[in-house]
Order: sequence, then C-alpha cells, then structure tokens
Amino acid sequence: MTEEQPNPALLPAGLADLLPPDAEREAALVEALMGVFATHGYDRVKPPLLEFEDSLLAGSGAAVAEQTFRLMDPVSQRMMGLRADTTPQVARIAATRLGGVPRPLRLSYAGQALRVRGTELAPERQTAQAGIEVIGGMAPEADAEVAVVTAEALAAVGVSGFSLDVTLPTMTPALLDAAGLSGTEANRLARALDRKDAAAVASLAAGRGPVAALLPGLLEAAGPADRALAALAAADLPPGPRAIAENAAAVVRAIQAAAPTLRVTLDPLEFRGFQYHVGVAFTVYGPGRSGELARGGRYLSQADEPATGMTLYPDAVRRAAAPAPRRARVFIPLGGDRAAAARLRGQGYATVAALSATDTPQALACTHILRGEEAAPIQE
Amino acid sequence: MTEEQPNPALLPAGLADLLPPDAEREAALVEALMGVFATHGYDRVKPPLLEFEDSLLAGSGAAVAEQTFRLMDPVSQRMMGLRADTTPQVARIAATRLGGVPRPLRLSYAGQALRVRGTELAPERQTAQAGIEVIGGMAPEADAEVAVVTAEALAAVGVSGFSLDVTLPTMTPALLDAAGLSGTEANRLARALDRKDAAAVASLAAGRGPVAALLPGLLEAAGPADRALAALAAADLPPGPRAIAENAAAVVRAIQAAAPTLRVTLDPLEFRGFQYHVGVAFTVYGPGRSGELARGGRYLSQADEPATGMTLYPDAVRRAAAPAPRRARVFIPLGGDRAAAARLRGQGYATVAALSATDTPQALACTHILRGEEAAPIQE
Repeated sequence: MTEEQPNPALLPAGLADLLPPDAEREAALVEALMGVFATHGYDRVKPPLLEFEDSLLAGSGAAVAEQTFRLMDPVSQRMMGLRADTTPQVARIAATRLGGVPRPLRLSYAGQALRVRGTELAPERQTAQAGIEVIGGMAPEADAEVAVVTAEALAAVGVSGFSLDVTLPTMTPALLDAAGLSGTEANRLARALDRKDAAAVASLAAGRGPVAALLPGLLEAAGPADRALAALAAADLPPGPRAIAENAAAVVRAIQAAAPTLRVTLDPLEFRGFQYHVGVAFTVYGPGRSGELARGGRYLSQADEPATGMTLYPDAVRRAAAPAPRRARVFIPLGGDRAAAARLRGQGYATVAALSATDTPQALACTHILRGEEAAPIQE
Repeated sequence: MTEEQPNPALLPAGLADLLPPDAEREAALVEALMGVFATHGYDRVKPPLLEFEDSLLAGSGAAVAEQTFRLMDPVSQRMMGLRADTTPQVARIAATRLGGVPRPLRLSYAGQALRVRGTELAPERQTAQAGIEVIGGMAPEADAEVAVVTAEALAAVGVSGFSLDVTLPTMTPALLDAAGLSGTEANRLARALDRKDAAAVASLAAGRGPVAALLPGLLEAAGPADRALAALAAADLPPGPRAIAENAAAVVRAIQAAAPTLRVTLDPLEFRGFQYHVGVAFTVYGPGRSGELARGGRYLSQADEPATGMTLYPDAVRRAAAPAPRRARVFIPLGGDRAAAARLRGQGYATVAALSATDTPQALACTHILRGEEAAPIQE
C-alpha cells in the first residue's frame, strides 16, 4: 500500500508561481509605472505586509475585513492582518508619521495584497498592486490627476486602447433618498438599477414622483462622458444629486483638458463594487476583453480626511502590454574571455558561463556564442 | 474615564514602514541588483507569499520551520505558511515546473520574507530578499559564480569596501568525526570552536590524537583566504576534511580569477548559522559595521539535487550604498503649460501640479517653479 502524498507542485487555489519571462516582465512594468508616478511628485512608501488588524481594518479597510487573513502575533498576543489592500495602510502613514506634512500629500506604493477567497471570475488570492494616493483637499483636479497620471503610466509601458469609466457611487442612494424612497421599495429599485433592467426600473419608478421619474433616463444616459454629462445637466436634479453631477462634470472636464485623446465613459447610476467611495469612482478597462487594469476614486482617509487615488493591477497590465523581447544569451565557454563577456553585458546581452566541460550552449538556452571578443549567433 | 485606545501609529515589533525617500531607493536598488543577475543569465521567478506548509518547509525549508507563520487555508482546509525564506520555493519550482529544463538552471527572485520572531541583534520580522540560485551540478565554478555575480551587483549599485567570508560548515563535524570524537567530548570541542576559545580548544584537543591536534592551528588560520588555504594545504588532513579543503581551494581560486580585487577571507572551522549548507558557505560583510549584505552557499535542493546560491538583503544594501540624489521638483501653477511640464518630466524633473489656488510651491516641497517653459530654481 502506498501512502498518497500531496503533489509538491500543487499550490493552494488562487496562488501561483510567475515563471520566466513573466516575473521579470511584471517587475519591470511595476517599476516603469512607479517611475511615471514619481515624475508627477508621488513619493513612494512601503508599509509592512502584516500589521495589527485594528489599524489595518480601520476606515476604508473595513471594506476588506472579511477578505483579510488573520494571524496571532506571538510577540504582542494581538491579532495581525495580512493586507488585502494597501490604501488603508497609506491612510495610516499619511495620518500618523506624515501627519505633519502639508497637504495635498502625494504618495505611491507597490506590493502584494492577499485575500482569503477568490471569486469565480477572479480566482487569484495574491494580487500585485501599484498605486497612487492624493491625501488632503476636495479639488476635482486631484481626482482628474490620478486618472490622467494612470493613463500616462499605462501609455508609457505600451498599453493602448484602454478606457476610463467614471461612476458616481453616491448618486443612486442620493436620488432614492431625494425621491423619498426607502426600505423594500428603494431596495427593489436599487437592484433593478444594478441589473440595468430598464423595464423594471421604469415600472418601479412610475408614479413615484418627479425624482424617481428621472431614473429611466439617467440609466439610459450611461456611455460616452459628454453624452452622460449632458443628460445630467438637462435633468431637473434635486440639490444633493445636482452637486454630485456638477463635481463629476468638473472632474471629467479636467481629465479631458489634460488627456484629450483618452476615451472616458460615465455611468451615472452604477454603484456596484465601490464600497468606500464618496465621490467619483474610476475603473480603467483594458483593450478588448483584457479586464480591469486599475480601480480608484475618491474616499475618506483616516479621521475623514478627503483623499483620492488609483490602484493599478500589474498582472492585468502585463497581459495588456506587449511581451518584452527576450534578451540574447551568449554562451561563454569555460575559461572564456572575461573582459569580452563584460563588454557584451554592457551592450545588453546576457552572458551565460559554462560551469563545467559538459555545459553546452543548447542546454543553457543560448542564442549566441562568444567567438574571439564577439557574440556570434548560433545557427539553428 | 477614557478608554485607552491602541496608538494607530504603533506597528507590531519588527515591522516597519519604509518612508520617502527610502522606499523608492530600496526598490531601485532591488531592480538594479536583479538587472545584474539577468545579464548573467539568471531568469526571474516569483513564487507566491503563501503556500502549503508541507512544500514550504520541505528540504532546506525545514531550517526555518519554527520561524514560519502558519495560516489555515479556508478553501482547502490545509495549513499554509507565509514564507520565511525564498530558497525552498525556488527549489520547488526547479524540481517541478522547471524539472525538465536542462541543468545548470539559473534562477533569480526578489520579494519579502516574514518570520515569527526577531532577535535582539536583528529585530526585523519582514525582510526584503533578492537572490540567485544555480540548481544542478557540483562545479566549484558555480559557487564562485554566485559570489562573483553578487560582488558585481553590489559594486554596480555603488557599494564598496565589502568583503566575502567563506566558511566550510561541514569541516568541523568531519574533523571531529575523523578524530573519533563523539558525544559530550565532541560537543565541548564544537562549543569551544564556536566561541573561538583557543585555550579551551587546545586543552580539549590535547592527547586526543593527531586529527584533534590539528584544531588549534586551523582555528588560528582564519583570516585572508590565501593564508587559510595554505594552512589547510599544509595540514595532514584525513580524506574527508581533505576533500572539503580542496573544494574550498577550487572555489576560492575561481573567485580570485574572476574578481581579483575582491577581499576574500576564509574561516575553516566556523559553522554557526549555516543550517542546511553542504559545501562552502558565504557571508558578504558591508564596509565598517554595516552588517551582513548577503548570505549563501552550497545546499541540496529538492530530491537532493546539488545547488548553490546567494541571498542579498536590500535593506542592508541600501544602508551601505550612497543615498540617491533627490529629484528636483517643479511647481506647476493651476492652468500651467502642460506640454512644458511634460518636457521637464522627460528631462528628469518631477512636476508637481497645484490642485487648487491655495497650493504653494513651499507646501509641495518644490525646488523649482515653472516660469514660461523653464524650471526656475526657488530662492531660499
């Protein structure tokens, strides 16, 4: 009888190895994105992967509380969490160690985040994140900047054909409230809006007064930002929703001024998936069906300090970007000319040294071989 | 009565935020080190932070079992570990998904490792690692290569004045065994050697035969590699220790041939702190008292495949390297010339845009201000 051993190649669901050349490519993309952020004055911070759960899950962190792995700290006997999102940590840094730095404070970060369970559509439980936050101030220019800098960073790493979708997660609740709807009635309408079920929205809104009567038209208005903003401007909105619409218009105008070729869409009544956003929210969609490249928007940082930001997903960015060309590899025979090898590395070649007499250029996946002082291509 | 709240700035012992400019500097150093590794043919892999503990703690992973945080995986109901070391993960990848790739296999990695407790001298519980592994083959040239590539990478990021210490963790056990010593006697000698207590070694070795009589001289021989190798060559070593010494001589000669200016020391009887090394072991010490920059050496990878490697500690490398010059920051007033700002970014400036009329160059820590299309220095 043989004992069944777990397959050592088997990783837990949603956790994966990134192999060559993808791991190098992802790292290069992260640093290229971070480099663009730095040229716009975003200063990098690196919070630890683990911290006490009461600080990790405070504020916007509450939205990921159920998705956070917990560990007992044997040193302090207190519970720690393994971060599921970096934004709450940046909020903590901004409020404490950088609490005395004048606002607006621009910070950036890159690292891994882990969550307890994946979903059917997004099974991965470890996700690389690279992001920016502007902490302090309510200016629509801040929201526009995080969107524009994100677009510039994506373009800098060779991603094209992406679009920015703007949503207003507080609009639907504000309209339902202004319409005097609550309880079951409001929930039914919210669900119908969430499903984009125009017939159900029309039927549930009928006879519920002038504010509810706006809902079918605003649901219809989703699409290119100019058309959606025109619909919002034309609608007879009560004061709360009006302020949300005017702020959205200011953000979109600032984005369009800075990035005139960026495709911007606006869905005024969409609210799903933005759990802690208080103003505009952003989703950057990749070309074709390559999925979400980034998410962000306006939120309240620690002690309700206004903030806005964007998180990019380097794994999705890598799939949307062109693959990096592979480096030419030059085989250096045992005892080969070290100085020549160093010069070739300086020219961008990888040099791969034989370590024993049995090593061959083929086994070491070399494309070239050192001949004299030059890299000679290996004939197939 | 006020309830005492935990200070939100308080992180668990040994876990810290890296703030500007250190976080950006560390990331730049990691990528520069990884870039040098890539030019020597090391292909990057990125294993997940969490995996099943039976694969994480197999082989060389057993050495860090007590230092590994454990978590229950709610999906599989199996225990997972948060990696305390990356080498066992690279070993798993080499043995499984890259099991069919010809040897020697050169792999590199960079990432975070966590451990349950720090020590008094090294309190940190999260450590960045960047490393290389050569899997397959016993060639002394492989050990030499990981040392030489490490030295080249450190030099490339501006670290100088470091030295490479070579130890032979199997030498002391092999000598005690060849001397016919075991039990209490052997343990006392091992402890005296570990303390470098020459008087105790001399007294414990006296009258224990010719092999034990070699110990005081070999303890004395620690120092510059040439002197230590000469002492080993002159000693009348039994076959096992002789083979260890000859391998060490071959490794050191290969290092000296490739890196003639590198300072190499050799301590033949040192064995502390190398728990899974089977041949030469390496420690790279920074200049002055800046501590260990790297550790490595020869070990057995999965299924006892011979391997050698080096792990660099980017945090220590950052402290040993010169600080990066800070980027000049150019204040862009509201409505400032976007094209001029983009040109300045292309020239290496950071441009920091005013987001509201109250933003000032001083508050945004700017060194320059946009005047016309140029960056004008701000007078103090």
